[in-house]
Amino acid sequence: MLILVLNAGSSSLKYQLINAETGEVKASGLCERIGIDGVMKHEIAEYRKLVIDHPMPTHKEAIEFMLNILTHDDTQVIASIDEISAIGHRVVHGGEYFKRSTLINKSVIRKIEELIPLAPLHNPAHILGINICQELMPGKPNVAVFDTAFHQTMPEENYLYAVPHEDYTEHHLRKYGFHGTSHFYVSGEAIKMLDKKDTKVIVCHLGNGSSICAVKNGKSVDTTMGLTPLEGLIMGTRSGDIDAGVVPYLMEKKGMDTHHIIDYLNKKSGILGISGISSDLREVIRAANEGDHRSKICIEMLCNRIRKYIASYTAVLGGVDAICFTAGIGENADLIREKVCTGLEFLGVEIDKKKNKIRESTNREINKDSSKVKIYVIPTKEEYVIAQDTYKLVK
Amino acid sequence: MLILVLNAGSSSLKYQLINAETGEVKASGLCERIGIDGVMKHEIAEYRKLVIDHPMPTHKEAIEFMLNILTHDDTQVIASIDEISAIGHRVVHGGEYFKRSTLINKSVIRKIEELIPLAPLHNPAHILGINICQELMPGKPNVAVFDTAFHQTMPEENYLYAVPHEDYTEHHLRKYGFHGTSHFYVSGEAIKMLDKKDTKVIVCHLGNGSSICAVKNGKSVDTTMGLTPLEGLIMGTRSGDIDAGVVPYLMEKKGMDTHHIIDYLNKKSGILGISGISSDLREVIRAANEGDHRSKICIEMLCNRIRKYIASYTAVLGGVDAICFTAGIGENADLIREKVCTGLEFLGVEIDKKKNKIRESTNREINKDSSKVKIYVIPTKEEYVIAQDTYKLVK
Repeated sequence: MLILVLNAGSSSLKYQLINAETGEVKASGLCERIGIDGVMKHEIAEYRKLVIDHPMPTHKEAIEFMLNILTHDDTQVIASIDEISAIGHRVVHGGEYFKRSTLINKSVIRKIEELIPLAPLHNPAHILGINICQELMPGKPNVAVFDTAFHQTMPEENYLYAVPHEDYTEHHLRKYGFHGTSHFYVSGEAIKMLDKKDTKVIVCHLGNGSSICAVKNGKSVDTTMGLTPLEGLIMGTRSGDIDAGVVPYLMEKKGMDTHHIIDYLNKKSGILGISGISSDLREVIRAANEGDHRSKICIEMLCNRIRKYIASYTAVLGGVDAICFTAGIGENADLIREKVCTGLEFLGVEIDKKKNKIRESTNREINKDSSKVKIYVIPTKEEYVIAQDTYKLVK
Repeated sequence: MLILVLNAGSSSLKYQLINAETGEVKASGLCERIGIDGVMKHEIAEYRKLVIDHPMPTHKEAIEFMLNILTHDDTQVIASIDEISAIGHRVVHGGEYFKRSTLINKSVIRKIEELIPLAPLHNPAHILGINICQELMPGKPNVAVFDTAFHQTMPEENYLYAVPHEDYTEHHLRKYGFHGTSHFYVSGEAIKMLDKKDTKVIVCHLGNGSSICAVKNGKSVDTTMGLTPLEGLIMGTRSGDIDAGVVPYLMEKKGMDTHHIIDYLNKKSGILGISGISSDLREVIRAANEGDHRSKICIEMLCNRIRKYIASYTAVLGGVDAICFTAGIGENADLIREKVCTGLEFLGVEIDKKKNKIRESTNREINKDSSKVKIYVIPTKEEYVIAQDTYKLVK
């Protein structure tokens, strides 16, 4: 059964066409600069790569163009869109409504809409993607797979904030956590690799958005992101943890309103804000190597925060069997993995610097043989999980 | 030399009259409910305790009454206020201006005033206290001892937030930390007790306001409070760490302005907000023992947060020699100390449950003999440090 997996962002669209039974990726790609000009990076079954400039004034043109590429000319991988059985949508915020993936109907869309204040960058784009799919491929089932669902197993004492309790019961104010699909997949792979009963796993999902998750026996018990995807680690443009007193302070000092402050903390802070150079860690590492002081400090801050969370989640779990690195930075930035692990020797963490430097795209172990704690690099496969969940719900 | 130590709060005034050469406390006390009705708890040299109702419409009447009690009738400990050589004031926020204690002049007062947005609950009361002392005891030197000063040794990567760098350089936006006088004193005592070179000490100052400090070789390298005293641990009425995205979310959901949100997070959250019972942990522990669910959750949340910070500061220090408990909760709540240490066995922390239960007012060790990490209870002496600093500056 062929599943189209979509991840609609505010000006981007990631997609994969996956055979859910075999896991084979028939095609995948990314439309970027939607609403600006439009460029598509398209890959056919891992042997042919294309970069195509194509006007994409809205997400609709992007999806239309993608469907056209999949079904026509020499890029054709399916004869018609009829071969697509269902569409699986990544949805960032499912609140407390969704503890697992779900078939999309009007009531589901209404709930995703309701949650927009909690994920203002993401949920509106997801709804757009869902609506366009329903319009362009009428009658096909759409499934929502939520970033928050995996974390719904967190215990009360870990998801509540220390605010008046009525704001939890009345305004749904609590920690939700995100990247659940990735944390679920990566922790699952780690548990297979550990091959033991009673597992304590810490997953570091380090990408443009980043979060860490403490996983006990396969269940999320704590995670760094909170009510919104702002809390926790330092990210590309997000501040992560910061004194909440900073918000009213800046609003008063700089005459910002709530809209400004959300924009400031989500889009102008993080790696971009500290370095003043880029939100792309690769550029900041380059600048640091050339001696740029703020870039050096930025890398220290980033790694410090990750290291501190690994230690604190070891306390949450009462120990740790494996630390996993995944996503863009986690899979590729050996410098970050090395820096994070250096200083965690008191936990029994010993990284093998040579193994850490090897670039591979498969699951691998990068600790020394003497290390009490396993260190894994596990490429995440969120699209695969979305295809699987969609398949299970529609078959 | 007799030093009067003052800690002026918004509706309270703590004071001690100390002989700085001998450390002898001649009298001490607390005026409460200033502006409401007024009650003074006064203690003369640890042998006579008084509770006096006396109208205190403003801090001025409170200080006048206190000076009167010290100099008259059968409560007299000094013949006249001429015997007081200087006044040492606790000041919460010294920003980056003050790296150590300082003699107060007009420019110092102006700077403390400038910092009011950073400590809106505290700095205005301190200025009031200073002004009244200058009026009632003209010509006597006044010294400011800052809660932030000890933390000025934190390295850049630990005090910067991941926001645009200009907001640090232009708006002084950074982590400052508080309770510095207490962290300085307690870590100093711990270092004496450890009696070794190269020390890694974690101080848990747990009172109505709470913070943890990582101290390497006697210097603060990281601490939980931030730009304001809101960040970090769960406190009596303060939320501590919370997704900064909560602030705009609540402002929009509940129509709050910046004044409301500051009040909400500083005065209505924390232990009071979660439990719905009290900001006083003793009452919440009582309710938990009687089966109240929210009180139980509150205690779990409080201890979790402390445990996580101890683990993360062990990562900051690259290990830990001693964990110290101090202040109201830290010195008296054996339940909290036991709960915090339980779950930290992976760090080599083993609490001796019997020793932990013994109530004493002196420095003591409560770990098992086999514990790799020392656990100390060290009663804090902020007033003593303030008297010492004042003495050194005026002698």
